[in-house]
Amino acid sequence: MEKINKVAIVGGTHGNEFTGIYLVKKFEKFPDLISRTNFETQILFANPQAFELVRRYVDTDLNRCFKLQDLENQNKTNYEETRAKFINQMLGPKGNPKFDFILDLHTTTANMGLTIVLANNHPFNLKTAAYLSSVEPDVRVYSWINPGEENAFVNSICELSFGIEVGPIAQGTLKADLFQKTEKLVQASLDFIENFNEGKLNLINQDIIVYKHLKVVDYPKTEDGEITAMIHPELQGRDYEQLTPGEPIFLTFDGETIYYEEEIPTWPVFINEAAYYEKGIAMCLTKKERITF
Amino acid sequence: MEKINKVAIVGGTHGNEFTGIYLVKKFEKFPDLISRTNFETQILFANPQAFELVRRYVDTDLNRCFKLQDLENQNKTNYEETRAKFINQMLGPKGNPKFDFILDLHTTTANMGLTIVLANNHPFNLKTAAYLSSVEPDVRVYSWINPGEENAFVNSICELSFGIEVGPIAQGTLKADLFQKTEKLVQASLDFIENFNEGKLNLINQDIIVYKHLKVVDYPKTEDGEITAMIHPELQGRDYEQLTPGEPIFLTFDGETIYYEEEIPTWPVFINEAAYYEKGIAMCLTKKERITF
Repeated sequence: MEKINKVAIVGGTHGNEFTGIYLVKKFEKFPDLISRTNFETQILFANPQAFELVRRYVDTDLNRCFKLQDLENQNKTNYEETRAKFINQMLGPKGNPKFDFILDLHTTTANMGLTIVLANNHPFNLKTAAYLSSVEPDVRVYSWINPGEENAFVNSICELSFGIEVGPIAQGTLKADLFQKTEKLVQASLDFIENFNEGKLNLINQDIIVYKHLKVVDYPKTEDGEITAMIHPELQGRDYEQLTPGEPIFLTFDGETIYYEEEIPTWPVFINEAAYYEKGIAMCLTKKERITF
Repeated sequence: MEKINKVAIVGGTHGNEFTGIYLVKKFEKFPDLISRTNFETQILFANPQAFELVRRYVDTDLNRCFKLQDLENQNKTNYEETRAKFINQMLGPKGNPKFDFILDLHTTTANMGLTIVLANNHPFNLKTAAYLSSVEPDVRVYSWINPGEENAFVNSICELSFGIEVGPIAQGTLKADLFQKTEKLVQASLDFIENFNEGKLNLINQDIIVYKHLKVVDYPKTEDGEITAMIHPELQGRDYEQLTPGEPIFLTFDGETIYYEEEIPTWPVFINEAAYYEKGIAMCLTKKERITF
C-alpha cells in the first residue's frame, strides 16, 4: 500500500438518512471543503430515488447489495440491485477498485453517538479510526464482521473504507449538531489521508478500543412473527454500555420484563434502530476489546 | 350534552407511529383494560396498509382527509381517502356521529412529551385535558385550530375528542416508557369519562394552560424548494419553551445562524417533526394562554 489516490465520500445510501445526503450536497456546492493536495475526492449520492420517496430504499436495502455474487447475478435487476452494479462499476469493481478509500455516511435512531463501522480490520482503517478518536473523543469503533461471511456494504468495494454512523436521529430528519460533527469527521478523515500520503503519520495512540460484533438479538415474537415486546426502558439509549447477565433487555406489551440471560457481559449497539425491526434485529451484541496495531 | 355512550380509541392513523398501533393491538387482546361500567369502548386500527409498509400513509395523509367536502367528494378514491370515508361511516358521520368521543393516538419525532392536541376548545375536551394534567403533570395542551378553517383530523368527526401526541419517538420505533405513559393517559381518559357519566366530576383546577396555534414556519429553502438550513442546535428539543425575538432558530448548511425576528415571544411546538418536512413545517408557533372554564 503506497498512496491513496482516489477517495469517495458516499451519502444517501439510505434515502431517509438526511445527514449524509445534505453533507454530500454541501460538498458538491463547495468542493474546496473536500479537496486535498495529494489525492482526488469524489462524492456520490448513492440512492437518490429513495431520497425522493424519503424511504430507506425503493425495493431493497442498497447497503446489503454488494456481495460479489449479487453484483454478478444478472437476475438481480430491481432498483437498488441495479444501482449497486452501477456504483460497483463507478467505484469498483469490488476486489480491484478504481477508488482507494470509501467513506459511507449513515445515521441511526439508536444512541450510537459517533460510530466508525468497520467492515474489515485493515490496519489503515484502524489507524484512521484511532485518529478520528483523537480528534473527537466521543468516537467509538464498531467492527461489524461476521466471520466467514462476505460483507455486503457499499464501502466493502474497497478494503480501505468504513461507514460513519451517527445517532440518535429520527429517519427523515436532520440534527444540526450531529451534522456538524459528521462533517468534522469527514474533514478529519481527509486530513488523515493527506498526512498519510505525505508520510507524516504521527499517531500518539497505537491501540484502540473496538466493539467487535458477536451476534444480533431479535425482538420476542409470536409464532406469526409479530413483536410482543419493546426495548426495556433501562436498556433504551444505553448503546456501548456494558450489559451484564440478569439485566433487563425487553419489556413485553403486557408489562413483563425479559432479562439478558447469557453468561458473559456484552456491549449492545444499534439498540432500537428503526430500520432493523424488519431485519429482526432489536440490537447487536458486541465484545469490547483493545486492539494494538 | 347528557352522557357519553360510545368511545373510540384510534391507533395507527399514521402507519409508522407504532405506539398507538401496539396499544390498540394490546387493547384488542385485553378488552377489559378499556371497558368501563357506563359506556362502550371500541378500538380502531385506522391505517393497517400503511403499517404494513411502515410508512405514514400509502397515498396521502389519512389525518388530513376528514374535511366534510372531501368525505363527500366522489372523486377522492385513493387508499386513505377511501379509508377516511369508511372510518367516517363507522364512527361518524361527521356532524352527527354514532360515537360520542374519539381519542386518536400519535407519536412525533419532536420533543413534545405528552401532548393533548385539541381540534376544538369544547369545555369537555378542556376538562378532560385538565384532568389528564392532574394525573400526569408533564401533560401539555396544544390547541391546533386555524380560525375559519375546518379541521381535517380523524378525531374531528366528533366534537368531543382529541389527539394524544407523544415524543420524541423516531418513526417506526417504540419507546417503552412513552408506550406506558400513553397507555396511562388512555386509561385516565376513560376513567374521566366514566366519572363524568356518573356525575362525579371533582376537578380541583378549573383553568388550564393552553398553547394556542398561531402559524407554521417553514425551513429556509432555495427557489427550487430545497431546504438550506436545519433547526438550530439551540432550538432543537425546546418544544414548549419560550422563544424570544433575536434567538436562533435555524442553522444553514453553510454554518450561518438565522434568528427569530418576530416582535413578540412565542412557544414553538412540533420542532423538527419528520413528517412535516414535506408539509413545509419546521415548527408551529403558539401563544401560551391560561384558559378558565
